[in-house]
Amino acid sequence: MDVTKSNFQTVLEALDDELENASFVSIDTEFTGLNSTEGRSNKLSSLDTPSERYKKVLNSSPQFIIIQFGLSIFRFDNSISKYVNKTYNFYIFPNTSTLPGLPDTKFLSQASSLGFLASQGFDFNKLIKEGIPYLNLVNEEKLRVILKKKANHYIFIRMHLLLNCLRFLLIKKDSLTISRSSRVETFLQNEENEEKRNAVLELHCNTIQNELIFSHVKSRYPNLLFESSKKTCNGCTVIVKKTGIQKSKTEPSETDSYVAEMQKVEDNVGFSRIIRKITDSGKLVVGHNMLLDLCHILGQFCAPLPEDYDDFKGMVNTFFPRFIDTKVMATTKPFRDLLQNSALDRLLNSLLAAPFRNIEVIPATGFPSYTDNFKNHEAGYDAFITGRCFVAMANYLEDISSSQSKTAAVHESLLVTPFYQKIFMMMVPDIPYMTISGPDLEPSREHVFHVTFPSEWKLQDIFHLFSVHGTVRVDWTGDTSAFVTLHRKENSHFVLSAMAESKLPVGCSVISYQAYLNRKSQIATLSAEVPDLSSRKRLSSPVQCNTSDVPSPKKTREDVKNMKLNKEQFVVSANWD
Amino acid sequence: MDVTKSNFQTVLEALDDELENASFVSIDTEFTGLNSTEGRSNKLSSLDTPSERYKKVLNSSPQFIIIQFGLSIFRFDNSISKYVNKTYNFYIFPNTSTLPGLPDTKFLSQASSLGFLASQGFDFNKLIKEGIPYLNLVNEEKLRVILKKKANHYIFIRMHLLLNCLRFLLIKKDSLTISRSSRVETFLQNEENEEKRNAVLELHCNTIQNELIFSHVKSRYPNLLFESSKKTCNGCTVIVKKTGIQKSKTEPSETDSYVAEMQKVEDNVGFSRIIRKITDSGKLVVGHNMLLDLCHILGQFCAPLPEDYDDFKGMVNTFFPRFIDTKVMATTKPFRDLLQNSALDRLLNSLLAAPFRNIEVIPATGFPSYTDNFKNHEAGYDAFITGRCFVAMANYLEDISSSQSKTAAVHESLLVTPFYQKIFMMMVPDIPYMTISGPDLEPSREHVFHVTFPSEWKLQDIFHLFSVHGTVRVDWTGDTSAFVTLHRKENSHFVLSAMAESKLPVGCSVISYQAYLNRKSQIATLSAEVPDLSSRKRLSSPVQCNTSDVPSPKKTREDVKNMKLNKEQFVVSANWD
Repeated sequence: MDVTKSNFQTVLEALDDELENASFVSIDTEFTGLNSTEGRSNKLSSLDTPSERYKKVLNSSPQFIIIQFGLSIFRFDNSISKYVNKTYNFYIFPNTSTLPGLPDTKFLSQASSLGFLASQGFDFNKLIKEGIPYLNLVNEEKLRVILKKKANHYIFIRMHLLLNCLRFLLIKKDSLTISRSSRVETFLQNEENEEKRNAVLELHCNTIQNELIFSHVKSRYPNLLFESSKKTCNGCTVIVKKTGIQKSKTEPSETDSYVAEMQKVEDNVGFSRIIRKITDSGKLVVGHNMLLDLCHILGQFCAPLPEDYDDFKGMVNTFFPRFIDTKVMATTKPFRDLLQNSALDRLLNSLLAAPFRNIEVIPATGFPSYTDNFKNHEAGYDAFITGRCFVAMANYLEDISSSQSKTAAVHESLLVTPFYQKIFMMMVPDIPYMTISGPDLEPSREHVFHVTFPSEWKLQDIFHLFSVHGTVRVDWTGDTSAFVTLHRKENSHFVLSAMAESKLPVGCSVISYQAYLNRKSQIATLSAEVPDLSSRKRLSSPVQCNTSDVPSPKKTREDVKNMKLNKEQFVVSANWD
Repeated sequence: MDVTKSNFQTVLEALDDELENASFVSIDTEFTGLNSTEGRSNKLSSLDTPSERYKKVLNSSPQFIIIQFGLSIFRFDNSISKYVNKTYNFYIFPNTSTLPGLPDTKFLSQASSLGFLASQGFDFNKLIKEGIPYLNLVNEEKLRVILKKKANHYIFIRMHLLLNCLRFLLIKKDSLTISRSSRVETFLQNEENEEKRNAVLELHCNTIQNELIFSHVKSRYPNLLFESSKKTCNGCTVIVKKTGIQKSKTEPSETDSYVAEMQKVEDNVGFSRIIRKITDSGKLVVGHNMLLDLCHILGQFCAPLPEDYDDFKGMVNTFFPRFIDTKVMATTKPFRDLLQNSALDRLLNSLLAAPFRNIEVIPATGFPSYTDNFKNHEAGYDAFITGRCFVAMANYLEDISSSQSKTAAVHESLLVTPFYQKIFMMMVPDIPYMTISGPDLEPSREHVFHVTFPSEWKLQDIFHLFSVHGTVRVDWTGDTSAFVTLHRKENSHFVLSAMAESKLPVGCSVISYQAYLNRKSQIATLSAEVPDLSSRKRLSSPVQCNTSDVPSPKKTREDVKNMKLNKEQFVVSANWD
């Protein structure tokens, strides 16, 4: 079901019950773009640590926004022993009005991303005209402060007006005729709107006026409670409050429209309320390849993303206390041996065939069936099939387990709990996921080396440098640096000593992965004090040789080997370990 | 007429003739946003110089893009003595494919701007799916370099293949049967596509092979010209060229698709060609309030905007050698006394009534009439009514002139020439326009002063400071600085001496406008050497007093006056002049 401004309130109001009854929910998002920066420093590497990967995501995508959010609610129906599904496809667009206090959001789009979504049938007119607005907690707080000031000002104006009306009544007793009190009438009718229920007036008056209020005015305005009369040195204080709620039958006045405007602003918290309801429900949230989704959801609807990776973990645990990334499942045993491809649409296809069982999911009444209606890359559809993939994989785990008590309500299976709070990390074979609930994996990288070299070097030159140690994988980190991973781990211990003995080519250095990490953390500490030390160049090549005169090693490897070299020209790290 | 990818080529091809016959063209654009930065430093001021204003535009809008361009072509038809109009409304969107060499443009949008356009009926789906791509000259050049490399590689492959075919023919005479030469057939049929017309092959061969070519091969391939045969020491060189164009009837081969891809890339220069055609036509270009339009057109379709304002003038003169801004006309005598409002839609309404004449413009055959079909804020419609406003105003100038020979073809009127090459500058009363063709206006600003003051100061405090000099206008330049303009210019000469005599309040300085400019240019020079000197704070308050202990002047003006002040606490500039 598509959700836009027009039906958002209805969906929102029903959501508490939906979530209460839900077994689990699955989610997906569509963005305006994926990569905001080019260049190697932000490029994903197969040796990224979780913290490095988080920083790369943080640097590359903050200005893109989520424009579609899929929420697929799965409820296990015991009577039919099947999951029943309701899927919502929310169109989300920042506030377009220029109401004071609301941000006029500027966001980045990537032409290829919008083009792709358009080719998949995404309706951008609907998005911009009908998209649900949102505010994260910081912007909401800003707005509340501004609104509070305004509201105070408004209450002041209203009170001032009532006071004058009452004074008018008090001074001129005969003013209690209908015609002359019409202005008061209008005012007090406006006063009867529910949103102004807490209006309070303290009215200072002398004893005679006090009597007049209680003899004439009070009876005239049954919806006002003239609650008490405190005596002061100069007379009395009458506190006027509202008693009941009675809808105004008149046309909205200026003050009414103002209140309506304020309500409109309240509405701008909009979609963020959905996320808060999901958080509050405590239900399991399932996503697929969730890193970008989670980062965007948190930043856009919750609060700005923290710089620090551990703070990010804390934030994820706060807003998503229980989640599963189906891409983590699909790439972990036993599934990784059974599935060719973990991309969402292909994953579903695989999971519909043996050895898996095609677990039927029933669309709830009034909700369209996605089963015969593929809408790849619509957030709602992708959320739905993510949920289906989860059910299929959890079901398989139950099927193959030796446990006696098997359940069809597989979201309750204890066998899925090892997958909680893990986010898939693309391209990193030895750290396949971020562990959000605790410390991350720290696999040994003793067989990994950080190499710097002249800019002329090609892949072959690096292969050549390591040729005696067997085959290697090269991960470029810049034009003059790379990580080199030995295929034969057992050779790890020979590399640095071998390199020290056979002189390294000019402008080349080889250090262990651990030494690289140490140096990086030293530089990070230094650069926090002296910012200009933090340049990438310095990071990746801590000792610089003048390589401008060094001929291309490809053509002159033999020459270089035979050159009578100055020992100082070799850069061999003292940090070998 | 809406122009998208689907009819762009047709419109482009017809445009040379259209422009050739045009009397003048008018233009308008729609953007994805207007202001990318908040804060005072970029806020327009009524004392901006043209150079300052240009810098502010440069800082605030480079990442927004033009998504609609209106081109309205007016041709004066002597037979009916009226203008005939053709209006094109181009949808423009950056390339969405990921073809190598093409930029995957990231652009900024402002939610309120997109919301406004959507509310006016702008079709974003059409934009993204059908928008015409573009490349500025820099990106085009990058692409050409990449394409050239590829094309060279491709030509190399093609030539290699033809060479082998010919070798095959030459070595085995009997291969000229249909079956065995089928590969050659296919190749040469592909060769006949128009886009490969310039393919040239130099074929080195011995004398016998040369004879074979001319006796057998030449006759077999009538679409190839075996043009000449140069003798070299080893034999001959046969140069093979294409002679005619004959469409291939076979299915496109792999090489054909590659060529088609290359053509597709060529197409990505797209809309930029329209701007080049307008430039090349030399026709008068009319716009309304053109500064943002011109900046975006130049930056997006021509080349990156220069930092320097004079370079910007040069760039405008290059690409728009003759233009008129109707907002400059409407705000200049005689029009400024006759028109209440120079906003485009209101301007047109005024110009349709007395003392102006409603000059009829006829839509050309096949072009919809905008006259009964208001489409405010559609670029095409706005371009059209800009042209109408120009005709109406030029016509009025002719009407009131004392000249004997009046013309209905008012674009030729000498009376409009004073408006050439001037861009309206919003909000600056004494420099109402930028003069692109020469030096800008430099009105005396002797009655303007730059004042710095404690952050607690309010407008009233500044009024108070200048109270003896009559009424003033205050233009804030920051929280602690402002320009103050005397209403009574004759008081200008007394201000600085009066301020020197009556001690200035703590934390306050007053300098002349000229001294302010001098200091600004000094700081600009300095900051070019030491970047951290350029902060706004330093700029606007060159000498800082510790004002944290100074009570709010509003409440304590009398106290402050009577305080026994340390003379050093007063900041009075030595630059008074």
